[in-house]
Amino acid sequence: MTQSAHAGVFVSFEGIDGSGKSTQARVLAERLRTLGHDVVLTREPGGAAGAEDIRRLLVEGDPDRWSPETEILLFNAARRDHLEKTIKPALASGQIVISDRFADSTRVYQGAARASLRPLVETLHDLVIGVDPELTFLIDMDPDAALARGLARQSGEDRFEELGAGFQTRLRAGFLALAQANPARFRVIDGAHPPEHVADQIETEMRNWLRINKA
Amino acid sequence: MTQSAHAGVFVSFEGIDGSGKSTQARVLAERLRTLGHDVVLTREPGGAAGAEDIRRLLVEGDPDRWSPETEILLFNAARRDHLEKTIKPALASGQIVISDRFADSTRVYQGAARASLRPLVETLHDLVIGVDPELTFLIDMDPDAALARGLARQSGEDRFEELGAGFQTRLRAGFLALAQANPARFRVIDGAHPPEHVADQIETEMRNWLRINKA
Repeated sequence: MTQSAHAGVFVSFEGIDGSGKSTQARVLAERLRTLGHDVVLTREPGGAAGAEDIRRLLVEGDPDRWSPETEILLFNAARRDHLEKTIKPALASGQIVISDRFADSTRVYQGAARASLRPLVETLHDLVIGVDPELTFLIDMDPDAALARGLARQSGEDRFEELGAGFQTRLRAGFLALAQANPARFRVIDGAHPPEHVADQIETEMRNWLRINKA
Repeated sequence: MTQSAHAGVFVSFEGIDGSGKSTQARVLAERLRTLGHDVVLTREPGGAAGAEDIRRLLVEGDPDRWSPETEILLFNAARRDHLEKTIKPALASGQIVISDRFADSTRVYQGAARASLRPLVETLHDLVIGVDPELTFLIDMDPDAALARGLARQSGEDRFEELGAGFQTRLRAGFLALAQANPARFRVIDGAHPPEHVADQIETEMRNWLRINKA
């Protein structure tokens, strides 16, 4: 997605479960609103009526309810709906869209976990999604600390969190590899710092980005 | 799918809504069982626990609930689950699988309706499904007669049937074009005949096919 294609800004938050990215996405949305920006805070899977229905199929039930291939198809169906119904209209009207997860999560959760699935993940993304955020905050976090936090939530949506600490370690490495491969888009934030400190850092990065790219 | 890849037989029924294909699929299953065959009767979208959950997203609600692209992704997710959980295990154990609809329905409902979507339909099929039935019965039917029958069912699953008679006419032409392009796989059956007559014709074709291919 080139910045000239629309008036808005597309920002995503990524990280392993329990990294604090959902909290940080919400805090950034609040701070940008305080600064006078028009912000849409959304999430994946979900973020639109149909996509939320698909989300329920994805996050509830046994970890082996779907094969990796079926799961990738469902994530792309939800993402396509989210993009059409929520993200693109908001960007077209000049809003800042902050999404708690986007395509990078599929790249890492489905692709990094099994290298043989990477071509399917990339081909589907190119076929039916075709866009990535302009700016992505990766909240990097030690998997043990993050896992303890995530499970403590008891949201009932624990299909992925049940997959364990070894899996989370591979996910963390996957996210860091993506950030390294896309340095212009990614900002890696140390999630081990106190939340207020993390939020300050993100706000500073966001304001710098807006000053440079949307002056 | 080559016939040597497994011991079973994969048969599908296709046709527009109200053509009688579901009835005919059931009758063929019963007749083959009477002849001593081990038969799995299944359907799309659905045919497995997860695929049936996806079915509810597809067949209920407004006709414009999903964009064509999202719909194609959901059909392929359901089909992949159906294939993994129901069809492939049954074929591996030597059963005859009779599916009320399969990938041809997506080719026609999503692909024939909008020519621009055909590449997406074909690419997805090759990527995540990769197989077609060995034998497909197309129950060909006048759309006006079929539409009257279909709406009379009042199943609550009328999202596609609500699309109207003009759409059904395009679907019929799409199915016939597929049959013409795949003459070895397709048997076109005139659905205007009395159901018992149609069933006899299908049974004869099926027995001939089995004698030639599975002797």
